[in-house]
Amino acid sequence: MEAIQPIIWKGTSLQLLDQRLLPDEERYVECRTLEDIQDCIKKMVVRGAPAIGVTAAYGLLLAARQFCEGYAPDEKEDSASFMPKFLNALESAGISLKATRPTAVNLSWGVERVLNKIRSLAECTSSTILKELEDEARLIFEEDIAVNKKIGAWGATLIGDNYTILTHCNAGALATAGYGTALGVIRSAFYQGKKITVYADETRPFLQGSRLTVWELQKEGIPCFLIVDAAAGYYINRGEVNCIIVGADRIAANGDVANKIGTYSLAVLAKENDVPFYVAAPFSTVDMSVSSGKEIIVEEREPEEITTFRGLPLSPQGVKAKNPAFDITPAKLISALITEYGILHSPNEEKMKQLATKRGELFECNGTG
Amino acid sequence: MEAIQPIIWKGTSLQLLDQRLLPDEERYVECRTLEDIQDCIKKMVVRGAPAIGVTAAYGLLLAARQFCEGYAPDEKEDSASFMPKFLNALESAGISLKATRPTAVNLSWGVERVLNKIRSLAECTSSTILKELEDEARLIFEEDIAVNKKIGAWGATLIGDNYTILTHCNAGALATAGYGTALGVIRSAFYQGKKITVYADETRPFLQGSRLTVWELQKEGIPCFLIVDAAAGYYINRGEVNCIIVGADRIAANGDVANKIGTYSLAVLAKENDVPFYVAAPFSTVDMSVSSGKEIIVEEREPEEITTFRGLPLSPQGVKAKNPAFDITPAKLISALITEYGILHSPNEEKMKQLATKRGELFECNGTG
Repeated sequence: MEAIQPIIWKGTSLQLLDQRLLPDEERYVECRTLEDIQDCIKKMVVRGAPAIGVTAAYGLLLAARQFCEGYAPDEKEDSASFMPKFLNALESAGISLKATRPTAVNLSWGVERVLNKIRSLAECTSSTILKELEDEARLIFEEDIAVNKKIGAWGATLIGDNYTILTHCNAGALATAGYGTALGVIRSAFYQGKKITVYADETRPFLQGSRLTVWELQKEGIPCFLIVDAAAGYYINRGEVNCIIVGADRIAANGDVANKIGTYSLAVLAKENDVPFYVAAPFSTVDMSVSSGKEIIVEEREPEEITTFRGLPLSPQGVKAKNPAFDITPAKLISALITEYGILHSPNEEKMKQLATKRGELFECNGTG
Repeated sequence: MEAIQPIIWKGTSLQLLDQRLLPDEERYVECRTLEDIQDCIKKMVVRGAPAIGVTAAYGLLLAARQFCEGYAPDEKEDSASFMPKFLNALESAGISLKATRPTAVNLSWGVERVLNKIRSLAECTSSTILKELEDEARLIFEEDIAVNKKIGAWGATLIGDNYTILTHCNAGALATAGYGTALGVIRSAFYQGKKITVYADETRPFLQGSRLTVWELQKEGIPCFLIVDAAAGYYINRGEVNCIIVGADRIAANGDVANKIGTYSLAVLAKENDVPFYVAAPFSTVDMSVSSGKEIIVEEREPEEITTFRGLPLSPQGVKAKNPAFDITPAKLISALITEYGILHSPNEEKMKQLATKRGELFECNGTG
């Protein structure tokens, strides 16, 4: 199978697979500046919490290069005058990157990781910093894929043979540097030879399910049925779904999960029908600074995403629409959280604290957690 | 407010407001034959259980006229040879009408009511029968509006001032002969001067919410917000919804309700969040011949309704989709069933039996039931 590459670093530009055009067209948008990156995140050329994190890291690299290009070589060597301005400019770039989309914490995480790198290099020359930044961005990219594969391996232990798995939105290769979180688990189970079938929610309004998840699954040859979001409950209630797996955009310190709008409803339906509800996400999606889901800002997007389709009106002129892009699923509805460190069953504040402090150790002690 | 007229009898043809084109165009399809009627029901030119029932009644009238036109006047007077063939033809027409859509019972109900009328007139002349059939169809039409207004009056007693009401699909004037069931309750509350706001689910894939419900509410001036189906849980969980009201396509003898796909999920979300969940429907939607929702056939419609939009592909070529048009909400999740006879709280088999046998009396005894 030809690997899906949503994000390609070309040495001087970041190529982003335009997820608004899929599956009709596989076209890349070339980003050469911070502004290009911001625009692509806002407009959802690139989406998915981990993918946004990686993109933001490259955004800072591009911002750093743009800043340095404004200076003559000798000016850059005068680090006493240059470096404070440089650091300032990158802190500002970080702030503006974080503001592009408020809910997914990986965006902040990616920005902060790169900024910390820069802060630690304040004594170095600008050319060293640029080189280190490029290495750091590449590392974030590579780690993301490695982490996804670990999540996949852990998660696959929860998937039985002949399982029908329901997923929402796209938490696949396209939502990450590659491989995927929820779809990574599905991939891993499939690669292990398990016979699985996926029910993919279409995921209005952006149709990540019908456009992206189905496209990824087709490329893998994983059997899949597309359904409207409102049909998930019907199949769950009929006993046709063995488990539900979704990704996450931010996980609070008590285990509450912000994810694509509609996730909460699936978790409630899972509870009502005794179906396991799993969240698969890298640890970088955990935000221990917010105590519960109530503190997570839910992005409201443009009403036009609901009231129009490719410019065609779907509803009468003048209609008012509300378009929250995410919702909050309380930890009590989550059967297990799957991270690269293992499987955390029935997440709660206490267990999240252990996960945050012990990470790898936790699961070396507890087996599959 | 100019009344919405989804079904207009013109004396020689039935004019159906084409609900596939709304809100872009208000265009009527003219039906002159049984086949025209069948086509319009199948393709959802007309939809909504009560509206289909009324349309089917006129379908039989048109079938009866078509049959009689094939005979010379004196042949029709030879009732011994004519009448058995006439009755046979109409029984066949009834069967083919019922087959157009399997879930909504009002279709069978309308057909059976007209066939019973014909059976009772077997001794009459064909011209008398045709006249009586036209009267019966008109009566079904007029009764539907009167029944909706009774449902509205009962239901409005459940709506408080400043309520935010969530509804799914379109159970409005367009789904009936006029006025509506769930939207009839909302209309009645609004006409009483209650300040209400409606959250309308867009209702994929046919978009009855964004195209039809919003259009109806706008005409009335009732404040309304359009949301994607998957956002309902978000607003219910935030405490922004005071009650949920939907219509019904078939109600089993134990109170289980078949309604538009997504209804079951709303009922589960309502229970989880202690929000009242109401079903508004005429008694003609009750089918005492099916003991529970498990026996109700759920129509599966074409995958193209999900995989394409106005001919444009929404997902990759070759995708498989499942498109159940309805789901089943168990009676235990329903706070109250609102019919023209009153409000039946917490419907169950016993109460449904009382409703079916006592009807009006039940509520004269029990007040608001």
